[in-house]
Amino acid sequence: MKLGIYLENVRKVKPLVHNITNYVTVNDVANVLLAAGGSPIMADEAAEVEEITAICGGLNINIGTLNKRTVESMLIAGRKARKEGKPVVLDPVGAGASRLRTETAVNILKEVKPTVVRGNISEIKALAIGGRSTKGVDADEADAAKGKDEFMAIVKMTAEFAEEHDCIAAVTGQTDIISDGKRTFLTKNGRPEMSRITGTGCQLSAIIAAFIIANGDAKLEATAAAISLMGLAGEIGFNNMSKSDGNSSYRNKLIDAVYKMSGEALDEGGRCEELSRV
Amino acid sequence: MKLGIYLENVRKVKPLVHNITNYVTVNDVANVLLAAGGSPIMADEAAEVEEITAICGGLNINIGTLNKRTVESMLIAGRKARKEGKPVVLDPVGAGASRLRTETAVNILKEVKPTVVRGNISEIKALAIGGRSTKGVDADEADAAKGKDEFMAIVKMTAEFAEEHDCIAAVTGQTDIISDGKRTFLTKNGRPEMSRITGTGCQLSAIIAAFIIANGDAKLEATAAAISLMGLAGEIGFNNMSKSDGNSSYRNKLIDAVYKMSGEALDEGGRCEELSRV
Amino acid sequence: MKLGIYLENVRKVKPLVHNITNYVTVNDVANVLLAAGGSPIMADEAAEVEEITAICGGLNINIGTLNKRTVESMLIAGRKARKEGKPVVLDPVGAGASRLRTETAVNILKEVKPTVVRGNISEIKALAIGGRSTKGVDADEADAAKGKDEFMAIVKMTAEFAEEHDCIAAVTGQTDIISDGKRTFLTKNGRPEMSRITGTGCQLSAIIAAFIIANGDAKLEATAAAISLMGLAGEIGFNNMSKSDGNSSYRNKLIDAVYKMSGEALDEGGRCEELSRV
Repeated sequence: MKLGIYLENVRKVKPLVHNITNYVTVNDVANVLLAAGGSPIMADEAAEVEEITAICGGLNINIGTLNKRTVESMLIAGRKARKEGKPVVLDPVGAGASRLRTETAVNILKEVKPTVVRGNISEIKALAIGGRSTKGVDADEADAAKGKDEFMAIVKMTAEFAEEHDCIAAVTGQTDIISDGKRTFLTKNGRPEMSRITGTGCQLSAIIAAFIIANGDAKLEATAAAISLMGLAGEIGFNNMSKSDGNSSYRNKLIDAVYKMSGEALDEGGRCEELSRV
Repeated sequence: MKLGIYLENVRKVKPLVHNITNYVTVNDVANVLLAAGGSPIMADEAAEVEEITAICGGLNINIGTLNKRTVESMLIAGRKARKEGKPVVLDPVGAGASRLRTETAVNILKEVKPTVVRGNISEIKALAIGGRSTKGVDADEADAAKGKDEFMAIVKMTAEFAEEHDCIAAVTGQTDIISDGKRTFLTKNGRPEMSRITGTGCQLSAIIAAFIIANGDAKLEATAAAISLMGLAGEIGFNNMSKSDGNSSYRNKLIDAVYKMSGEALDEGGRCEELSRV
Repeated sequence: MKLGIYLENVRKVKPLVHNITNYVTVNDVANVLLAAGGSPIMADEAAEVEEITAICGGLNINIGTLNKRTVESMLIAGRKARKEGKPVVLDPVGAGASRLRTETAVNILKEVKPTVVRGNISEIKALAIGGRSTKGVDADEADAAKGKDEFMAIVKMTAEFAEEHDCIAAVTGQTDIISDGKRTFLTKNGRPEMSRITGTGCQLSAIIAAFIIANGDAKLEATAAAISLMGLAGEIGFNNMSKSDGNSSYRNKLIDAVYKMSGEALDEGGRCEELSRV
């Protein structure tokens, strides 16, 4: 599937993205949004989030370092975005690792009705079928698919989650699953070493926000394109590493690769297929 | 104009700068302060900011991710700094993008009377003549000067803003305008690609704080020197980029160039003129 | 002394570390934990910190940008960790620079009884014998040892502090002192340029947490190993710098060197001795 056009649209539209996100990876989130062609603004004070959402094309909510003050802001901004018909991405970081995280994600699902929910398998499982993660913000190995049957069960769970919440659900991992409940895409770009960089998931969720703002009539494809972009940038960044480079330089080279990516390069390198054709 | 001496003074004095700043770019702010020869401390709890300001040479207030708690701390720290005769920089990030940002910046202008106010054209316009930004924390293209007349109108606005608030006003962009209401400098270093890195403005405001602390008898020139330093570092960092580098590596190379900058190099590369001589 | 085994154990155990830390250096803390072989989670909301601590191997408390809300969370998480017999590291950033910082560190010492307390000489002095720092979060030059007698006085203070608080005390600087009150190690890796990078101390404290989790039966040696690892990575990172690199690239290369470090390389390059043998 050709994905470059969705990136090119981001570069044309230059979407302004309102991020309420964690303080761990926020700088990388801002830089990767700029790299992709968007423009970031971070604002988490309840007194201003409605105004900020109003001037932005959409909202990216990430609960990575949530607290009571910012949870309130997430809900206020989220409701405003939906009221104005603006897309919202939810990244339920660490859902399953604490009741506060799980409940906050569930509340946002109910009250905000996000356009896209993106998480790792453990996070989406925690929201879809309950259950408790013991690996914090990383995917629990116990949750990973151990064969084709288990993988297809995760695909089913993802599609059902999307249908139930009337959203696009994206479970990212070795193979990424993107579904709106009716159609499902699989993307296969990326490198295992990306999990040794903090925040590649956070970065991806922000990029998805930019992509669905700029591609309002093809949000499912745009989400898949954003995920392929991030994975392909991870491959290119990895190839650009020198012998002494580790995860810190890899972080830079990954964002650099997003910055340098052309629509044509994404067309060539993106590995995305609709499920029926797999 | 020779600017190197102002940098050399920063390296001699090693000014300790108290920063109440946003969590997006704070790490780069700390590293660029160290690169310039200063020393950063970040502290935003109302219960301690007076003591922290008291041991520092000056204060850098940045409202990029303000909230009610930190706004209070900004005012407490700001009043303390002024009471002790210590210089204060205000970076009104996103003024014009929400009432909270505009009002907070206006309150700090009134109650703290900052030594330097540095922002992009949209932010300073919002404070000088009102008006609403639609581009978040970036300058609105609609606010950019479209010719010599419009540019001179911005120069006039900057000088009047400085006079009204008895401060040094710095509007940074393609050409930077620095005025104390009586004298005005223009600096022309920098690269357009710097706007693709998050936080170059935040970094600059922190550097200005270090420069005016270390050059207390020439604050206007020191502000111009800080701005030239940042722009020149942006040029040098850009020249040090390899083919695969993007904005993340550029960020590193820019801070590296500040670190490596000598007074001599700034004398040679800095492009700063007093307005009457332009 | 051979130190590589302690690193190898971290890579085997992959300890999940709960960090309540400052927003300045938190991204580097997360990446360096991943580089060392651990796994980071940041969570500072009182409502969830007990659950997060419960799924982690230990807790790293850093007061670098403390506020009233997070101080409460530090105490709640700390008490939970101790109740569950999980190790706790305290990094008393800026103790001595404000009453809030000193008192918070003292309260944590009393109520949490950390396993390891790591700070610079000014911070540990402030906690051990009182006194006020005037250099913010950096060590005050006035506190540095001016010869062998003064150095041995610091060693004595460190050992007494460890004994009084029943902890491992680590005073890091040109020569690092690690003591549990009975035995004392000195480590001598590192480069002076590391102090021009923000947060190398914060990174180190997080690494120590990972090391003592993974080496529960040799916590003193593991602390020394973590400190040597960080110093040796600073040496290797420095050697990997090109002519135009400054502190920002150095930061990346340092974390990269942690990522690339093998147990064998740490055995060879680590310079650690027990004091009686010095």
